[in-house]
Amino acid sequence: MQRIAIDMDDVMAETALHVINKINTLTGSNWTKESVGKNHPEFNTHYLPHRDILFQKGFFRDIPVMPDAQEVIKSLQDKYEVFVVSAANEFPLSLTEKLEWLNEYFPFIGWEYTVFCGHKYMIKADYIIDDHPKNLLKFEGKGLLFDAPHNQEVTNYQRVNSWKEIEKILM
Amino acid sequence: MQRIAIDMDDVMAETALHVINKINTLTGSNWTKESVGKNHPEFNTHYLPHRDILFQKGFFRDIPVMPDAQEVIKSLQDKYEVFVVSAANEFPLSLTEKLEWLNEYFPFIGWEYTVFCGHKYMIKADYIIDDHPKNLLKFEGKGLLFDAPHNQEVTNYQRVNSWKEIEKILM
Repeated sequence: MQRIAIDMDDVMAETALHVINKINTLTGSNWTKESVGKNHPEFNTHYLPHRDILFQKGFFRDIPVMPDAQEVIKSLQDKYEVFVVSAANEFPLSLTEKLEWLNEYFPFIGWEYTVFCGHKYMIKADYIIDDHPKNLLKFEGKGLLFDAPHNQEVTNYQRVNSWKEIEKILM
Repeated sequence: MQRIAIDMDDVMAETALHVINKINTLTGSNWTKESVGKNHPEFNTHYLPHRDILFQKGFFRDIPVMPDAQEVIKSLQDKYEVFVVSAANEFPLSLTEKLEWLNEYFPFIGWEYTVFCGHKYMIKADYIIDDHPKNLLKFEGKGLLFDAPHNQEVTNYQRVNSWKEIEKILM
């Protein structure tokens, strides 16, 4: 059975949207995923001074699920061994929250198939689905780059725009 | 550079000793690591009814460091890429505590080189140092079984009894 490593933030979870909503509230701005995608450097000048929100208790618990992620990942399990692989260890308070979040929205993924880490290149899998090119770069299997506002300029990986598109490619 | 995956509980940390001390306090018994090693099934009849201690807040934060682990792991980093790989995701509250514990006792291991997971067979490494035979069984590299009270009967892996012994083998 082939193995897939699936990232959480901006792949299973709408993390960018959650960040944008927080920044809009904090700064009185009205950024959208689309406008951030078109001008990510300018968004960063508003976002980076507030990056401590990522370290606050509760931040990761409330993130909305990415559309269609639940149904498609459940069906992927019929054909693949699915691991969730999140580079979460920079955020110590996020880890318990991420397990709770997975239990709520993805109860069909057992804790044995969850990985919280830093680097991902030592994960042995056939596919990785991730929004960060750095996680695809040294990965031994095939990388699928999940479309996100912050990766619009990346061209050297197969881009996927939705879970429905992933379903077509992998099922 | 070759890569080593190092387990935390009963390899970097004296977890069995910590459990034994807690059980002695709870049940008024006087088990030692040696007596548990000689009669693990009987110890389990005392321990398993109290296994909820593993899920309590604070349990993992207070575990003593395994003798010589700090010095030897620091020297291993000169020759190997060292990852800490702990099957901790069964214990959601342990994760933040384990990061804090690592920061205190092993500040020279960055969060990028920490992995909290369930299964370990999808970790790509040349060596794994672990006290649980199940983690060595499907591992692609060489397994070193760290001596622990609960693995005394295991004979099909190279056993290491201390960090000084590991240093001799790997350095």
